[in-house]
Amino acid sequence: MKNINKKKVNAAILIIGNEILSGRTQDLNVSFLSDWLNKKCGVTVEEVRVIPDIENKIVESVLSLRKRFNYVFTTGGIGPTHDDITAKSLSKAFKRKYEYHKEAYSILEKYYGKKKFNEGRKKMAKMPRGSSLIYNPVSAAPGFIIKNVICLPGVPSILKSMIYNVKKYLVKGSVVLNKSISLYTVESNISKELRQIQNKYSKRVEIGSYPFFRLGRIGVSVVLRSSNKKKLESCYLNLKKVFKKKNIKIFN
Amino acid sequence: MKNINKKKVNAAILIIGNEILSGRTQDLNVSFLSDWLNKKCGVTVEEVRVIPDIENKIVESVLSLRKRFNYVFTTGGIGPTHDDITAKSLSKAFKRKYEYHKEAYSILEKYYGKKKFNEGRKKMAKMPRGSSLIYNPVSAAPGFIIKNVICLPGVPSILKSMIYNVKKYLVKGSVVLNKSISLYTVESNISKELRQIQNKYSKRVEIGSYPFFRLGRIGVSVVLRSSNKKKLESCYLNLKKVFKKKNIKIFN
Repeated sequence: MKNINKKKVNAAILIIGNEILSGRTQDLNVSFLSDWLNKKCGVTVEEVRVIPDIENKIVESVLSLRKRFNYVFTTGGIGPTHDDITAKSLSKAFKRKYEYHKEAYSILEKYYGKKKFNEGRKKMAKMPRGSSLIYNPVSAAPGFIIKNVICLPGVPSILKSMIYNVKKYLVKGSVVLNKSISLYTVESNISKELRQIQNKYSKRVEIGSYPFFRLGRIGVSVVLRSSNKKKLESCYLNLKKVFKKKNIKIFN
Repeated sequence: MKNINKKKVNAAILIIGNEILSGRTQDLNVSFLSDWLNKKCGVTVEEVRVIPDIENKIVESVLSLRKRFNYVFTTGGIGPTHDDITAKSLSKAFKRKYEYHKEAYSILEKYYGKKKFNEGRKKMAKMPRGSSLIYNPVSAAPGFIIKNVICLPGVPSILKSMIYNVKKYLVKGSVVLNKSISLYTVESNISKELRQIQNKYSKRVEIGSYPFFRLGRIGVSVVLRSSNKKKLESCYLNLKKVFKKKNIKIFN
């Protein structure tokens, strides 16, 4: 686990799921998680990986990412079926016993009722020894955290319902603020100016430019990101001035 | 570069872009590329990474992925602005000169006209020495291929317009076929049966199960994937029989 610098706390997301890799399912968790982690916890997502439901790939990826980032969030693979192997793989990665978590077992037993508490359902109470639970207000089956790895489900609506229960486990960092300017122009018309201003603000403000097509018109969104509010504002005003001077229409 | 086995050709996708990591932009290229590569070329995507616009991260990721997979597809970072550093980073990775590609230069000069061919626009003609072009019918700026790394733009509509020009560079593998069954049930009600049938078909058919919520009802899509058509069909019929016996409503 990377040493935590209270100002800069970072994370990786590990998406475990053949359905994302095959193109069948469109991932929606990365954009939600990244945005939520930054805004609510000051945690910046710096890498995302999507890997198949294969034990050694999960073990390898978790161990490599958790060394380089403060936190690793996994999504997917904690359900009741044979292709849900996240908890078992994490037990292997951490060399911990893969066993019933007492509280998880009783939550699920209560939810399903003793009679309907079959093997698949029981499986969702199994996790690496020493895990702490992340409660699930929608469908009972909890996520868990072990060391700096936080395991969440893949279904976006369930993940969203659980995310507030993750907050207490995280060290808070600085929130990255952003401002954007949308222009009716093309990137190659403003690339010189963007480079000059990026150099001026060096590493304090990160300037990105993203072309878009909207209602039949071409445009560019220039996005500024910084954890320093003053620098962000000054960079924003500077850019506005430059675009005005070039007679470029700012529409947003 | 991994040795190419004509039957199984695999790939990784490397998404280069702060805007995806920050949650600002929803990636749409993974699902399109994965699906297209499988259906049209028999190439299976086995890993996806999203990384920031940082040179050493790009170099590291490209070099590590291109050893493990037959092909690496990068998306993003080949535009005219300061944050577009894919071509330069690849030159570094391959220790090749970062220079104007003659044909790319003349394509772009013709597209913009000599007078309007500014520095930013010229930059899009720069790439590692020895690259081959991937033509862009929409906005002229080409992608390129060097060794087993194929560099495409990040804007989904432009990427889509260029993808047919990639085909000729790829060795074709076996297409993975799929069939799916949608059921009104929950995963934990069929997990035992899925496991039994997965064991029966061992590694010839991959069975995945994915919960969904549709029109206020809960369901599960069971997805079968295999490059063997006969096994796929037999597994499908087997599952249907089992679900019927359990009185589970198949609605699709």
